[in-house]
Amino acid sequence: MTQQIDTLFINAIVLTMDEKLTQYDPGALAVQGDSIIAVGFEEQLKKEFSAKEVIDCGGKVLMPGLVNAHTHVPMTLIRGLADDLRLDVWLMGYMLPVERQFVSPEFVRLGTLIACAESIRSGVTTFNDMYFFEDDIAQAAADAGMRAVCGESVMKYPAPDAPSYDDSLAYAREFIKKWKGHPLIVPAIAPHAPYSTNPEIIRACVDLAKEFDVPLHIHISETAFEVENMRNEQGMPVVPYVKKLGLFEAKVIAAHCVHIDTGEIRTLQHYNAGVSHNPSSNLKLASGFAPVAKMLEDGLNVGIGTDGPASNNDLDMFEEVRLASFVAKAASNDPTVVPAATALTMATRLGAQALHMGHITGSLEAGKRADLILVDTNPLHNTPRFKRDPMGAYAQLVYASKSTDVTDVMVNGKWLMREHQLLTLNEKELIAQARELAVKIDEFLTEREQSVLSKLIALGGSLEEESFEVQVKVKVEQPSLVIQNMKREEIEVTAHKHYRQFDQYFLFDDVNQGRLRYREDSLINAKGDIASVRSRLTLLGIKREDEMGEVLLSRSRFLAPATQSLRFYREYFKPKTEVEVEKNRLRWHIKYKNTEFFINLDEVKQPAMGTFLEIKSRTWSRKDADLKAELVRELLDLLGVGYAETVTQDYIEILTA
Amino acid sequence: MTQQIDTLFINAIVLTMDEKLTQYDPGALAVQGDSIIAVGFEEQLKKEFSAKEVIDCGGKVLMPGLVNAHTHVPMTLIRGLADDLRLDVWLMGYMLPVERQFVSPEFVRLGTLIACAESIRSGVTTFNDMYFFEDDIAQAAADAGMRAVCGESVMKYPAPDAPSYDDSLAYAREFIKKWKGHPLIVPAIAPHAPYSTNPEIIRACVDLAKEFDVPLHIHISETAFEVENMRNEQGMPVVPYVKKLGLFEAKVIAAHCVHIDTGEIRTLQHYNAGVSHNPSSNLKLASGFAPVAKMLEDGLNVGIGTDGPASNNDLDMFEEVRLASFVAKAASNDPTVVPAATALTMATRLGAQALHMGHITGSLEAGKRADLILVDTNPLHNTPRFKRDPMGAYAQLVYASKSTDVTDVMVNGKWLMREHQLLTLNEKELIAQARELAVKIDEFLTEREQSVLSKLIALGGSLEEESFEVQVKVKVEQPSLVIQNMKREEIEVTAHKHYRQFDQYFLFDDVNQGRLRYREDSLINAKGDIASVRSRLTLLGIKREDEMGEVLLSRSRFLAPATQSLRFYREYFKPKTEVEVEKNRLRWHIKYKNTEFFINLDEVKQPAMGTFLEIKSRTWSRKDADLKAELVRELLDLLGVGYAETVTQDYIEILTA
Repeated sequence: MTQQIDTLFINAIVLTMDEKLTQYDPGALAVQGDSIIAVGFEEQLKKEFSAKEVIDCGGKVLMPGLVNAHTHVPMTLIRGLADDLRLDVWLMGYMLPVERQFVSPEFVRLGTLIACAESIRSGVTTFNDMYFFEDDIAQAAADAGMRAVCGESVMKYPAPDAPSYDDSLAYAREFIKKWKGHPLIVPAIAPHAPYSTNPEIIRACVDLAKEFDVPLHIHISETAFEVENMRNEQGMPVVPYVKKLGLFEAKVIAAHCVHIDTGEIRTLQHYNAGVSHNPSSNLKLASGFAPVAKMLEDGLNVGIGTDGPASNNDLDMFEEVRLASFVAKAASNDPTVVPAATALTMATRLGAQALHMGHITGSLEAGKRADLILVDTNPLHNTPRFKRDPMGAYAQLVYASKSTDVTDVMVNGKWLMREHQLLTLNEKELIAQARELAVKIDEFLTEREQSVLSKLIALGGSLEEESFEVQVKVKVEQPSLVIQNMKREEIEVTAHKHYRQFDQYFLFDDVNQGRLRYREDSLINAKGDIASVRSRLTLLGIKREDEMGEVLLSRSRFLAPATQSLRFYREYFKPKTEVEVEKNRLRWHIKYKNTEFFINLDEVKQPAMGTFLEIKSRTWSRKDADLKAELVRELLDLLGVGYAETVTQDYIEILTA
Repeated sequence: MTQQIDTLFINAIVLTMDEKLTQYDPGALAVQGDSIIAVGFEEQLKKEFSAKEVIDCGGKVLMPGLVNAHTHVPMTLIRGLADDLRLDVWLMGYMLPVERQFVSPEFVRLGTLIACAESIRSGVTTFNDMYFFEDDIAQAAADAGMRAVCGESVMKYPAPDAPSYDDSLAYAREFIKKWKGHPLIVPAIAPHAPYSTNPEIIRACVDLAKEFDVPLHIHISETAFEVENMRNEQGMPVVPYVKKLGLFEAKVIAAHCVHIDTGEIRTLQHYNAGVSHNPSSNLKLASGFAPVAKMLEDGLNVGIGTDGPASNNDLDMFEEVRLASFVAKAASNDPTVVPAATALTMATRLGAQALHMGHITGSLEAGKRADLILVDTNPLHNTPRFKRDPMGAYAQLVYASKSTDVTDVMVNGKWLMREHQLLTLNEKELIAQARELAVKIDEFLTEREQSVLSKLIALGGSLEEESFEVQVKVKVEQPSLVIQNMKREEIEVTAHKHYRQFDQYFLFDDVNQGRLRYREDSLINAKGDIASVRSRLTLLGIKREDEMGEVLLSRSRFLAPATQSLRFYREYFKPKTEVEVEKNRLRWHIKYKNTEFFINLDEVKQPAMGTFLEIKSRTWSRKDADLKAELVRELLDLLGVGYAETVTQDYIEILTA
């Protein structure tokens, strides 16, 4: 008697991707409900089962669906927004400002549905996500019928879905409670990365992951810079640091792991952490070459991920599998490492194991869920097929198949695509919605890009605006006389400091944009050593409200702490030219006639321009400005400096005049 | 009055890929005959022209067809035949044996037609080939309607289409004469590589190229090994070597250029040599990372190629363009190098310039041939599109488009594909023919792989078979006595040598396969120094025809010079285990009773087994063997060695017994 089942696949080249890489050709597979109940040679299974539906696979490859082990699915909506930039410019200058402005439950829902459509077309049945509003992402993935690990992000900064990390953690708890046990969705917690969180956050995330027995998804050692900072700050690389915090008490999924050493690989293996290797993203952002061959050799579960589609710029896992093999070969200078079968195993069984779902999906074995795809390996670009070497079947898929060769996709026993037709999603509608949103994002960025000021504001961080400043500048021939006169009793010195200042001025084509100054201020102590360094960014407007004789009044100035490097700002603002000024500044904070002033004695060393005295005071009203201008004139007399050499220009104006 | 023309394309995003990267959106393009006569904004061209056919591009991208700057098109027929191997194993063990057996005019014609079908589908309009029977390749390309540079290969070895390089050169001359001036085909000469040719060949090729003013296509510095050899043999890297030979008197197209230094880049630039960068092939074969960013910076015309589809394994130029950008970023640790627009320029205008065809194709400019494609950038995997940054159009094509997004292809003013339908080729028929051939290749290799002997034969090179050998081996306690007795007057010593021998035995699962011995023979001179080293490969059959007492008769032995490294043979033959034997051999070639014998006195050092005396003579008949066996017994007496310790086993048999 034959057993009655739902679906029997016949006439397929079955690549099970099980431990032994068993193949059946012509092979068959039996599905009952959401699960695979048998896989084997067609002849055998035809005898054992009679099915409601028999699918003749026409000689296509039947294999497990691909596992995208690391992504940020809603970022489909901002793919191609900004490319070929430094990681920090890309992130701080474009991704974060746009995310702050646009990311909402509706945004992530649309982005996820688009990602699901694209993923299904490329043969992906499971993805591992990390983003915001993960409850909406989970709902969209479930609606599309895909299997997903959905990790709610937690960072030490405000996030689009939470003003503080306490809120993120509270959101995550509710989210995990709601989805735990769902047939398709595995909720997870995702502390973003060691550098973007803190020990308290990581600890709280580990506790949450343990309490609900859910995975913990985190970025680890993506860039050399990250590792260098960790070494400087903590005296150890990233994996030992998170180990010390107890991270590995949770079921960890570590994305990237580009810059990890042999000891760190062993630690990850020891604690059964999964790794997602993301070749396209690592190449495109020039993050480096992950030690994939070594990780595999040491028995780590290394899956393959696309990373977010904004740094890829797609979700094409066939491309990633090929690159995982290519890049490992090139990086290790050995064409035999990560052969096709290994790369495909990473994208299926090993990937599922990396997500701690090896018992559910990742290979065609009785008892696992029916997550499977059909791939046509007969098109012309994959012609001919050689049968001599069983490894050839994997080589065909890895080195010559395209994602567009995937014809049919089933997840959890349910069809999501038949003969290239998506069954759960309306692509046209999704495309139309995405276009509408893109117009708004284009408008937002275009407006922002119109001025240096708006680009500065878009960077975020605290920004300070000064509307009026009273200032006089005088060329000084005898600096020692000024220093001597600072001791006069009419002048009360409340603070005195010595700085070495390096100013980099960015000049723009349109002079109305003003000038942007990146200043590195080194505070010099009594011994002549550098005590501390700070960097500030100042936008100097070119417009002066008034000049009261030689006293300058009111300049528009915008200040922001320079949290990024000079190279960052250079690429972000793209100045036409740059001018560098180096000076020694003696600075006094004084009171004169009960009014506060700053006095700078600047020896401009590079280019050598001589020494200048500046007397400055901030002001908020025109009347106050008049008064202060008078006091400045008195101070100039007291300090023994006449009006003859008064300068009304900034150093950069003198230089570029 | 409007001008009457053949075809007007309207409603397109026109990416001209000209020097200024001019874009027109909505753009239009006018074609008359085989050429572009105008390109500009739709509004303008609509006024100027009235066309027999107006093509509404529906908002697709209209751009120049891609230029595949280096390939071996007929190798479509052997793609996926062998992967994940060392370059030499792949080449010597699989590609060359199969090519020797199968490459014919019919083979290259079929392979070329398949390559053309795949290339057209992936938006390629021009390719640069190097192979054999190039006359048939040119004919097939012309039949398919594609533009191609067809380079007839010349090597110092026999080729499938020529027993010697004189024949190749003669073939090339006739081939060039025949095709020179064809509207689609540019004939060329292709000295394979400096290491696979010789100065005479290179000189002859340069002269031929100059005589007919055709390009010269050559592989340059693909691997570090090649450069190391050139430095050892010629005291200089590859580019200076070929420069010395006068290579750059010709219009050179240099494929790969992976391992070239700054000086070599300058030389290539100075002589206006074109370069083809082949990222997939360089990654897959672990050849290294070409200094693409540096080459571009120095103004070289760097195109992009797929290389042969057997080392790729496809002809997908969209994949190559993406990789050219990705790999350059990763290799130079800078995500800003080779941005999307640059990568796409390499695949179009720069590629055409690299092929010395910049005046003909590579950009959409009035006066150039109408080689163009339409690409749909609206599918879901490329959604959404941002318009803020004009560079975004290139980023879409490079980072998210797939070759399957190419919908229409025109070459030389003639349609080759409309709406995904090929117009000049019958794909089904081509696939069927390729399948038939694949079965034969599978059979050939399967048969060969059945035994170590046939794999050895497949390697080619001179192979020597000895059907009978008379041999006796005796353990010797007093080696000095044997050396003394060698001076006896009955023995005429015609040669005496001292070797140090390192034998590596490969043992196989199936003992009937025999044992393969890789022997490194160091000849030691009177001073005790190594005078020379040679390597030999010997297959030792396990079957003995007869044992005449202690004299061993007839063993099947196959010898071949070991032209490859031990690591090569290890990977090619995949032995189950290996055993190493090191010995000092004193060897005499003697005459005794007018019969020749070899006498070896072997001190087996590693593992320490003692000293053995071997007396051997080759024989070709049973009768002669009987006679020689008798003489061997006499010799043993003469040398003072009894029968007591006679050994009938080879050293390896003693060790593995």
